[in-house]
Amino acid sequence: MPVRVIDVRERVMAQNDLIAAEVRQRLDDAGVPSLNLMSSPGAGKTLLLERTLADLAPSLRIATVVGDVQTQNDADRLSRHTSRLVHAVVTGGACHLDARQISAALDAVDLADTDLVFIENVGNLVCPASWDLGQTSDVVLFAVTEGEDKPLKYPKMFKRSRYALITKVDLLPYLDFDVERAIGYLRDVNPNIEVLLTSARTGQGLDEWYDILRGHVRHASHVAAESA
Amino acid sequence: MPVRVIDVRERVMAQNDLIAAEVRQRLDDAGVPSLNLMSSPGAGKTLLLERTLADLAPSLRIATVVGDVQTQNDADRLSRHTSRLVHAVVTGGACHLDARQISAALDAVDLADTDLVFIENVGNLVCPASWDLGQTSDVVLFAVTEGEDKPLKYPKMFKRSRYALITKVDLLPYLDFDVERAIGYLRDVNPNIEVLLTSARTGQGLDEWYDILRGHVRHASHVAAESA
Repeated sequence: MPVRVIDVRERVMAQNDLIAAEVRQRLDDAGVPSLNLMSSPGAGKTLLLERTLADLAPSLRIATVVGDVQTQNDADRLSRHTSRLVHAVVTGGACHLDARQISAALDAVDLADTDLVFIENVGNLVCPASWDLGQTSDVVLFAVTEGEDKPLKYPKMFKRSRYALITKVDLLPYLDFDVERAIGYLRDVNPNIEVLLTSARTGQGLDEWYDILRGHVRHASHVAAESA
Repeated sequence: MPVRVIDVRERVMAQNDLIAAEVRQRLDDAGVPSLNLMSSPGAGKTLLLERTLADLAPSLRIATVVGDVQTQNDADRLSRHTSRLVHAVVTGGACHLDARQISAALDAVDLADTDLVFIENVGNLVCPASWDLGQTSDVVLFAVTEGEDKPLKYPKMFKRSRYALITKVDLLPYLDFDVERAIGYLRDVNPNIEVLLTSARTGQGLDEWYDILRGHVRHASHVAAESA
């Protein structure tokens, strides 16, 4: 007897999309942009956020929601760089965050006292690409240690992302990674993707990253003020 | 109205387990061991297999089944190092290989003319850990560029693996990666896991890896001969 997986999956996805729309509305009304960071395990999401919190948390009020299959290691790391509560979601086996988890995390966030929300998704280039969380924009990180062809092999993730951060560029002298080829593959999959070359270790590219974040904050608060 | 995802998922998994058992029986009967390689994207599965085929294919008859979400890039890379057909499975969005795909691939393999089967799974530390493919043993690769705590964050994968290859050790001088701590985390999750330090670029650890492969080939053919 055949198994009707697709229908059930579609219903779960449809439920998720409804909750994601609610999350998006809630954030829009509050004038708070949110960025969903996705990547392979170990591409540098947490280190980027550690640096970002250390550098910007004094001037920006940043909320963070951190997903992992197991452990709250990443949330613990981030909590050292902010006085605000870090929200850890342990998925317990699930390969991605979903909108319900974000909604529950935001219930404990005072959005009127928040400029920006970061979501650090589960380290995985496949599954998170299928789940809307209500975020403003997607950011995909890929490390120069992973090889140039990741955009071609995981196109859905790179197609939906507004920004691609090529991370760990401080390691380029020790690798055969061809930056131009990687950017070419990124543009093949998503001609509009904005590409940054970054190293959270040396700080390369972080000023550009921070400008993007500040632009999101200005834009979201402006839009909310207009519609209020 | 609640959605009964679990039941359907369990039925799909049960179907998969039945097919995996058939695959395992087929391989056991033929005296052919199979190794399922899993890791994050870009941890070095393909480069390890390229080197392995280049070094061993003259003496061992190796069949390869390569899974990717998109592209047959990895299969193309492997095909340069073997005269045998490389079997590419494009999952088209699915985050793991399943037993049906392995069974279909093996239909085109003459097992009587094969010493060893490699399965290169989709680059993902989460989903492939839940799917039995009928393999003899699981091999997990994790690169020194990914950070020491991957075994703690993706424990299911590391628990089921018989071997852990810590890859790209040639990059250790340029990283803060603590090998002893990583091995400690591996053993916390799986006290019996066999750990190899490898670099497919310099060749470090590959002799030990090849000894493991030859041991599997000898053992499987011996067991098949005994039971014949």
